[in-house]
Amino acid sequence: MYIDGKPYRSIWPVDKQSAVEIIDQRKLPHAFEIVRLDVLEDAATAIRDMYVRGAPLIGATAAYGVCLALKEDSSDASLERAVNVLQSTRPTAINLRWALFEMQKRLIKLPASERLELAFSYAAQICDEDVELCHAMGRHGFELIDALWKQHDRTINILTHCNAGWLATVDWGTALAPVYMAHDAGIPVHVWVDETRPRNQGAHLTAWELGQHGVPHSVIVDNAGGHLMQHGRVDICFVGTDRTTASGDVCNKIGTYLKALAARDNGVPFYVCAPSPSIDWMIDDGLKDIPIEQRSGEEVQTLSGMDEQGNITTIRITPDNTPVSNYAFDVTPAKLVTGLVTERGVCVASRAGLRGLFPEKYEAST
Amino acid sequence: MYIDGKPYRSIWPVDKQSAVEIIDQRKLPHAFEIVRLDVLEDAATAIRDMYVRGAPLIGATAAYGVCLALKEDSSDASLERAVNVLQSTRPTAINLRWALFEMQKRLIKLPASERLELAFSYAAQICDEDVELCHAMGRHGFELIDALWKQHDRTINILTHCNAGWLATVDWGTALAPVYMAHDAGIPVHVWVDETRPRNQGAHLTAWELGQHGVPHSVIVDNAGGHLMQHGRVDICFVGTDRTTASGDVCNKIGTYLKALAARDNGVPFYVCAPSPSIDWMIDDGLKDIPIEQRSGEEVQTLSGMDEQGNITTIRITPDNTPVSNYAFDVTPAKLVTGLVTERGVCVASRAGLRGLFPEKYEAST
Repeated sequence: MYIDGKPYRSIWPVDKQSAVEIIDQRKLPHAFEIVRLDVLEDAATAIRDMYVRGAPLIGATAAYGVCLALKEDSSDASLERAVNVLQSTRPTAINLRWALFEMQKRLIKLPASERLELAFSYAAQICDEDVELCHAMGRHGFELIDALWKQHDRTINILTHCNAGWLATVDWGTALAPVYMAHDAGIPVHVWVDETRPRNQGAHLTAWELGQHGVPHSVIVDNAGGHLMQHGRVDICFVGTDRTTASGDVCNKIGTYLKALAARDNGVPFYVCAPSPSIDWMIDDGLKDIPIEQRSGEEVQTLSGMDEQGNITTIRITPDNTPVSNYAFDVTPAKLVTGLVTERGVCVASRAGLRGLFPEKYEAST
Repeated sequence: MYIDGKPYRSIWPVDKQSAVEIIDQRKLPHAFEIVRLDVLEDAATAIRDMYVRGAPLIGATAAYGVCLALKEDSSDASLERAVNVLQSTRPTAINLRWALFEMQKRLIKLPASERLELAFSYAAQICDEDVELCHAMGRHGFELIDALWKQHDRTINILTHCNAGWLATVDWGTALAPVYMAHDAGIPVHVWVDETRPRNQGAHLTAWELGQHGVPHSVIVDNAGGHLMQHGRVDICFVGTDRTTASGDVCNKIGTYLKALAARDNGVPFYVCAPSPSIDWMIDDGLKDIPIEQRSGEEVQTLSGMDEQGNITTIRITPDNTPVSNYAFDVTPAKLVTGLVTERGVCVASRAGLRGLFPEKYEAST
C-alpha cells in the first residue's frame, strides 16, 4: 500500500537479492525508517526485537533470514543453524514455524550450490502467497462494504481493533484489506480506529498506515466503540484473528470480545477476517482450549510516545508498585461473529459454515 | 479514608475556619500535595484547573469558595460576585450549581456581619451530608458483597470503572464505598481497576486511593474486563453515575456500557451506585435525552505520566495530525443494570424500582 504516495510492501529484497529491507515498526508512527538486513543475525534481531510483527510478516522475515544465512554458507549445517536461530526468536509464532519448515523442507533436497538462488525465490513465493491470500479475503470483504454503500449511499463507517493491516502482513492486511479495496474503488469509507491498549497498535500502526494511504479515519479510545454503535455511527466491524477454532470461536487482541458484544446489542454486523492458516482445525471451544498469554505488567504501567522535544519517551501512568494484570488476547464466541471472511469466501462462524468452504479439513474427523 | 495510615477527607477547613485545604489531584498518583485555599480566586482556580474533580467534591469546594469570599467582604455584592465567579468555573456541573444556590439562598437572608461564621457551618454541612449519603449507599452495597462472601467463602473480585471513590466525593466515594466497608469489615476483596482511557482516572486515582487504604487491587486495561468475566474472575461490578434517568438508564464514563454488556453475557451482577442527587427525575430515555459531551482530542492523542527522570511529562501516541474523536460518557440502558444502589436502599433500575424508594419524586407525574 502507499506511504507518502509511493507503493510499498512490508518486506522486499534489494541489491540483486543479496539483502532485504523492512520498515522499523518500533519507531512508527513517529519516524519512518527503513532497515537493511544483510546477515542471518539481522533477521533474527528484527523478529526478536519486534522491528517486524504480525504473524505473516514474521514468517516472511524468517524465510528471508534463511536466505541471508545461505548467502554466507549454504551447507546443511548452516541451513539447520539458521532454522534454529530464527525459530527461537518468537517460539510461539505459528507462521514463523511454518515458514521455516517450508524453507528447510524444500532447500535440504537441493545441492548446496543451488540453494541460495532458489531460497530467495522460495521466500518471494511465501510473500506472494500471503499477498494473494490477503487480496482474496479483501475481495470478499469488499463485497460486504460495497453492499452497504449501495444500500445507504453515504460514507460507510467501519470499526476495527488492533492492527490487522498491511504492516502485519506483506501487503493489504487481513481486516483492512476490504477497507483498502473499498477506498481504492472510490467507495467513501471512514474507519474508527480503536487505540488498542496496552500496546496501542491501533493508535500507532493502524492510524499511520490508513493515513499514509489516504483512508479517512479517527482514532478513538477502546471505551468508545459501544457508544458509537448505540448511535448508528458504525455500519460494520472488521477485525483480524490470531487463532480461530474449527467451530468459529475467535481469539484476537484483548477487547475484541467487548466490541463484538456491542455489535450484537446494536445489530451491527461483526466480521472476522480469518485466512485459513489462522484456523486451528484441531480445537473447537475457544474459551476452554486456547490458553491466553499473560504479558509483562510494564505494558500496562508505562506508555511510550513522542515528548515535546521530539524524543521517544516512556512514562509511567500508575502509582509506583501498583499491581497490574495484562492478558494479551480474549476469545469472541462464534455466536457473536456475523461471519468469517476467508480467502475462499464468507461463511457463518460455525463448523457447518467452515466445512462448506474447507470440506477437506473436516473429512478426517467425520 | 486513609492515606499513608492517616485518615483524610478530600477537603477540610483549617486555621479556625480561615482557610481550606485540598489534595492537588492533578499530581496524583505521582505526588501527594496538599494545597491551601485562602481566597475566592484560589477556590475558583482549584475547580477550574481540576485540582479537585468529582461532582460532590466540586460542590463542596464551591461552598467553601463562598466562605473565602465572605472572609474578605461579606456584602450582598460580594456574595453575588462569588457565586458568579464560582459558577463560571465548570458551567455544566450540576452539584456546583446546587451547592452555590444553597449557600446563596441561606446566606442572603442574614445580616452581613453574621454571614462568615454561618457560611463555614453551612459548607461543613454540605460536606457532612455528602459523607452521610455515601456512607448510606456504602452500607447497602456492603450487603451485596457480604452476601457473595458468605456464599463463596473466598476473596470477592469486584470490577470498577473510572474513579467513583472518596477522591471524587468528600469521603467514602460512591461505587467504592461498599468496597471500603467490606474491606474494613474484614471481608477479603480484590478490585479490578479499569485504567479508564482517555483520562486514566482508574490508573491514576482509583489505584492510588485503594492502595493508600490498603485494599488489594490490580489495574487492567479497559479491554480486559470482558475476558476476566468470561473466566469467572469477576463476582460483581460497582460503577458510579454522572446522571441517571427516572427509568434507570445510567450515563457514566465512556466504556461503562461495554462492561455492562459483558456482565450480562456472563451473569455477573452489575450495580450502579446512584445517590439521589445524581438522578434526573425529568428524563426517561438516556440514549435520546442525555447529550454526550465531546472533549478535546488532545486527551486521546497525548498522555501524561512520570518519565524516567521523575518529571511529569506529556507524550503523543498518535501520528501527527491524526483525527480523533473523544466522547466523554456513554449511556448504559437500564435493562443491563442489575440494580441501583441509592442512599435509601437497592432497587431495580426502572421507574417502578426507583418509585418504590423515592415515591415523592413521582407523585407529580402520575
